[in-house]
Amino acid sequence: MNKSNELDELRSRARGLIPLFYPSSIAVIGASEKLSKPGGIVLAHFLEDGFQGKVFPVNHRKKEIKGLQCYPTVLDIPEQVDMAVIAVTVSQVMEVLQECIAKSVKGAIIFSSGFAEVGVEGIELQEELKKLVNEHKIRICGPNCMGIINYNNSMMAAFSYSGIFPVNPPQTSKNICFLTQSGGFGLSVAVTAVSQGFGFSYYVSMGNEAESDFSDFLAFSVDDPQTSIIAGYMEGIRDGKKLALAADMAREAKKPVVIFKTGRYEASSRAALSHTGALTGSDMVYSSFFRQKGIIRPESIEELLAILTLLETKTILQGGKVAIFAYSGGHGVVMADKCVEAGLEVATLSEETLQKMSKLLPSFASVVNPIDSTGLDLVSQSLFKSCAEIVADDPGVDMLIFPYWVPKNIEEHTWEQLIQLKNSTSKPVIAIIMAGMTGAVPEHMIYLKRHGIPVIAGLDFAVKAIKKVVDYTFKVNSAKQEIIRPVSFLEKEKVEKMLAGYPPGGRLSESQAKEILLAYGIPVARERRAATAWEAVSAAEQLGYPVVLKIDSQDILHKTEARGIKLNLVSAGQVEEAFKEILANARQYKPGANITGVLVQEMLKEGTEIIVGIGNDPVFGSTVMFGLGGILVEQLGDVSLRVAPVCENDAWEMVREIKGHSILDGMRGKPPVDKRAIVDVILKLSQLVADFPQIAELDINPLVVFEDGRGACAADALIVMK
Amino acid sequence: MNKSNELDELRSRARGLIPLFYPSSIAVIGASEKLSKPGGIVLAHFLEDGFQGKVFPVNHRKKEIKGLQCYPTVLDIPEQVDMAVIAVTVSQVMEVLQECIAKSVKGAIIFSSGFAEVGVEGIELQEELKKLVNEHKIRICGPNCMGIINYNNSMMAAFSYSGIFPVNPPQTSKNICFLTQSGGFGLSVAVTAVSQGFGFSYYVSMGNEAESDFSDFLAFSVDDPQTSIIAGYMEGIRDGKKLALAADMAREAKKPVVIFKTGRYEASSRAALSHTGALTGSDMVYSSFFRQKGIIRPESIEELLAILTLLETKTILQGGKVAIFAYSGGHGVVMADKCVEAGLEVATLSEETLQKMSKLLPSFASVVNPIDSTGLDLVSQSLFKSCAEIVADDPGVDMLIFPYWVPKNIEEHTWEQLIQLKNSTSKPVIAIIMAGMTGAVPEHMIYLKRHGIPVIAGLDFAVKAIKKVVDYTFKVNSAKQEIIRPVSFLEKEKVEKMLAGYPPGGRLSESQAKEILLAYGIPVARERRAATAWEAVSAAEQLGYPVVLKIDSQDILHKTEARGIKLNLVSAGQVEEAFKEILANARQYKPGANITGVLVQEMLKEGTEIIVGIGNDPVFGSTVMFGLGGILVEQLGDVSLRVAPVCENDAWEMVREIKGHSILDGMRGKPPVDKRAIVDVILKLSQLVADFPQIAELDINPLVVFEDGRGACAADALIVMK
Repeated sequence: MNKSNELDELRSRARGLIPLFYPSSIAVIGASEKLSKPGGIVLAHFLEDGFQGKVFPVNHRKKEIKGLQCYPTVLDIPEQVDMAVIAVTVSQVMEVLQECIAKSVKGAIIFSSGFAEVGVEGIELQEELKKLVNEHKIRICGPNCMGIINYNNSMMAAFSYSGIFPVNPPQTSKNICFLTQSGGFGLSVAVTAVSQGFGFSYYVSMGNEAESDFSDFLAFSVDDPQTSIIAGYMEGIRDGKKLALAADMAREAKKPVVIFKTGRYEASSRAALSHTGALTGSDMVYSSFFRQKGIIRPESIEELLAILTLLETKTILQGGKVAIFAYSGGHGVVMADKCVEAGLEVATLSEETLQKMSKLLPSFASVVNPIDSTGLDLVSQSLFKSCAEIVADDPGVDMLIFPYWVPKNIEEHTWEQLIQLKNSTSKPVIAIIMAGMTGAVPEHMIYLKRHGIPVIAGLDFAVKAIKKVVDYTFKVNSAKQEIIRPVSFLEKEKVEKMLAGYPPGGRLSESQAKEILLAYGIPVARERRAATAWEAVSAAEQLGYPVVLKIDSQDILHKTEARGIKLNLVSAGQVEEAFKEILANARQYKPGANITGVLVQEMLKEGTEIIVGIGNDPVFGSTVMFGLGGILVEQLGDVSLRVAPVCENDAWEMVREIKGHSILDGMRGKPPVDKRAIVDVILKLSQLVADFPQIAELDINPLVVFEDGRGACAADALIVMK
Repeated sequence: MNKSNELDELRSRARGLIPLFYPSSIAVIGASEKLSKPGGIVLAHFLEDGFQGKVFPVNHRKKEIKGLQCYPTVLDIPEQVDMAVIAVTVSQVMEVLQECIAKSVKGAIIFSSGFAEVGVEGIELQEELKKLVNEHKIRICGPNCMGIINYNNSMMAAFSYSGIFPVNPPQTSKNICFLTQSGGFGLSVAVTAVSQGFGFSYYVSMGNEAESDFSDFLAFSVDDPQTSIIAGYMEGIRDGKKLALAADMAREAKKPVVIFKTGRYEASSRAALSHTGALTGSDMVYSSFFRQKGIIRPESIEELLAILTLLETKTILQGGKVAIFAYSGGHGVVMADKCVEAGLEVATLSEETLQKMSKLLPSFASVVNPIDSTGLDLVSQSLFKSCAEIVADDPGVDMLIFPYWVPKNIEEHTWEQLIQLKNSTSKPVIAIIMAGMTGAVPEHMIYLKRHGIPVIAGLDFAVKAIKKVVDYTFKVNSAKQEIIRPVSFLEKEKVEKMLAGYPPGGRLSESQAKEILLAYGIPVARERRAATAWEAVSAAEQLGYPVVLKIDSQDILHKTEARGIKLNLVSAGQVEEAFKEILANARQYKPGANITGVLVQEMLKEGTEIIVGIGNDPVFGSTVMFGLGGILVEQLGDVSLRVAPVCENDAWEMVREIKGHSILDGMRGKPPVDKRAIVDVILKLSQLVADFPQIAELDINPLVVFEDGRGACAADALIVMK
């Protein structure tokens, strides 16, 4: 199935979820009078919280609940039922579902627990459920979920024992869809957010995701006209490709997706044969994938809320240059520090700005950024505004930020100034309340937000949020790139034939792996295989001295460790001696290894050694990896990674992202390396694994990169088949 | 002056500050009726906020202020005056001070601004002031400060225009001294902290520190019996040695010091000739110094307050193994993630604990850490407590943490459970309120704190604070180490003679630098200097092949860049050729360089290349640096640093602290390196620079470290004199 078909299918699945959010009629199966039971809580929500659709209680032991007629089964309801909320014990769920199917119910939210979350038996039952609902195309949220809230039609199809879902919040704009893989945790975020004035459109606790999963709900919210921002809590997904599709939809629709993802604690215990494999820790793949797709990843709940504040107020952050108006010198220093730590830039004010300001300001005020706003404030209030407007006009300033810590008596007067300023400039105006709690009065935050000014509690969260929205804005505004296919049909066919010869799980020796790279246009060091010392000498004479000798065996992956490499051999004598030594070392290192011979290779001219490769992630599939050679990769894990296929922008991002990036710009008198050649190899590897997903792992280690314009050359390579 | 004398002097200076905190009588010079003036604000504080000492207004234009007799000058006051608060304009300060001196006033707080903070003229005036007060031994806080508050005697000798200093807080225990280099910023921290129930003993805004500085006030608070915790805000200090003394006093007194230090934004623009010099960014030196002295450095105000909460409740954190009782599965996952990110460990419960718990728990509850406490809660409240007690008994658990987000209705019942639990275990019990603001009711925090339970708002701040207190506890409990002096008098004398030959700012060539290292017992590669190719060959024959040839010139510091090094030369022919090439390269690289010759050096056997060195910090003086060789140091700055002199523990910390540390444990089949040899070289360099502070910079790059037990050897060295 090609991508366009996959997309059509996902969109169609998303449309199929509409009955779960906008049903005209709901059956509550397992309805109850009691507020201690899920079926009682949800019924109370429907009757008391403003839902306008029809509600039918279903409970075979009751005739009437809360004044409504109660039906023994869903089949007994005389009218059409769009959606069912299932709140029965686990043993009854399958029967109830079958009745729903018979009644042509379009979707069901299953609160009941006792499925995959409880172990073997539950997993089996969930598989059965999945089969049933897929067969009959009834859409499911859950089981083991807290349900769905639609704040647009007041449908609170959700329960919590603490009964503290926010009901009918006064917010006028409701455009944030919140998707959560933990009901309890999602609830706490929702309560916090709604109390702070965030306008949620939907809250979805998706439980075990037996049928509809995170990506389905994400796709739904992207296509939903009520939603313009999507937030979520994620512990992990099963289908990376599907999430990629949904994320692409979101990016195209310019609807930001902000996901708080956990999972760093989860031990990454997967065994891997190659470096690339070993380096692909699961959380790193998620991080890289999020970056690749423009999904914003906050590191905390507070940061999530801060990002939502910026997005909800439509604060357009086209760049990271910050002008700071601080309450005192100390506040300015602290704020500037935090900006720098977060990767923002403290703007340098232009000569023109400084001149304009110096005309307005008394001599004692020093005009530098951070600007001491209280100093201005003391002189006159209009002066404060005039100065801020001059700064806002500076083309080197992307935003104006106002860190405050102040208690209530100062606040209001300040807020009004901010609103006036906001109305007089097109640059973003952001208020930050220092030191979290003090003075962080929700009413003030809501008031300012209504005037288009985001106000964020907590310096650290604010700067991180701003940086992430700046990066998101850059990403979403950069042109979408097509994946380039650099390889001709003939070459692809050639590789197909070569790979056909290797069994699943097989490993290709260096020479075999290099043939494949060569077919995809990746330069490799010239080499000959030699079975005897005499052949080695003869090969060296053909290639020209100096040469390198390396053991060639698919059973020996780490040649250095096996002492199976000799560099810089300059004579027949040295080659002969090296040949014998390498064979002896290899036999000692791994007795019984299948040794194909010794590779005699041209000694590459000096360059910078990097590693590029392909890995395989259980969720996201093939990944492409890049890092600098040696200890940076092996001990510090300084690598970048993207899910295949990657576009050219992705490849450039990979090159720039590593910590040791500046090494590529040349150091110690060395010229800068040919980064374009690295990007080219990354793109070709991406294409290779797209064409041949049977490749599990591939390492080019090292790829020797020469100075700018001189290309790169694979000195060693390794391929492991799935 | 030796350290003990220096310490005596600092202690004596600290005692001299007592009149600033506990005066029996205060003169307010520049007293006013008006609350818009500093002299009015502070007088109102003295009269209205409970200060019991005598107060004398001084103002030559008034006869009486607020019912008190007003004096024209301080000299006119008929009684003794212990302390003066000076709130006059800058032009009057010197005269007023002279009168204070004549009156034998022991100390003065100078609010007046217009000194060093306003530029050249102010700097001069401040120097004059400094001279005057030093001569007459009157102690000064300020000028340009917000003053001192002593919460123990209700002496609010401070002003702020917003008039919002916390007055007479109800806190019973007042033991936190807060020192700040920014009055405004310190005020905001103080207001926040006091409103949250922190018990401050003193608040000191020290302004320009013309006479008494941060270290004086720190020493005062260490020796002060009212203070058991010292917190502060620091932008920078002038005298690192003095701060070191005060920090040593604090560590010895086991009074924790927590300093929020800014300064990352400040561009580090110092030029340096050696790597060590270039790598010593000022903020890094502060960080390293803080670590060395056990000063806790929070990264935010919230973290500062979180640390103070832990310290104030005497939460003893002997280790970092955490048992988590979470509100839901999701909350547990989030908490565990955060613990791991902060460097804490999610405790593995023992078999015995698991067995004990499984007897109590219903089958559905899965016993793992993080523990789902609401699951337990639903079954029975006593069960929750029993389980927590079992977990607390587990020797693999260092603390129990309880992340909550919940709103008020659940809170109180939970709090009581926590208090019961706290009373039944000796392990720390810590409450954390997730997502900052929601539910962070100060009264609850104060209530719990009174029962010995720290409650921290914000997950991120909590885990970072816990980790830092764990590290502090370890540090303060580890034995104090004497500095070892490994070098005999004779060798010291030898180096003295050698160094005497080099002028200030002079650079020593490789061979000269190595002589000095050798005298201090640091092994260096054997070598001969050669002036001609023939001499080089002869030297190589003496040393034995293979050899290394290197340019020897004090004008060429970066030999690789100058292509002035040839490795692994195995024959007379190669040596001859290399000699010529090196000379040619050097002449091309730096025409006119004074070339002493070419060094012929033994080719060291394979080892791990590291860099160790000495740097010179304008505040802290000589520093010792350690890092792994090559790009790790040059591009990533992965180095560790301590202020000299370092003790053995410091040296071991330096070795362990770098990111690439695991490389030293061996990789790729390599054996672990001789870390003890690295520690030894660090200690010897520390001694060298303690003996010869005229050494500005010293690089051993590389120091080749061999496998464990085989030592290390300096392959290259460089010394720059001050």
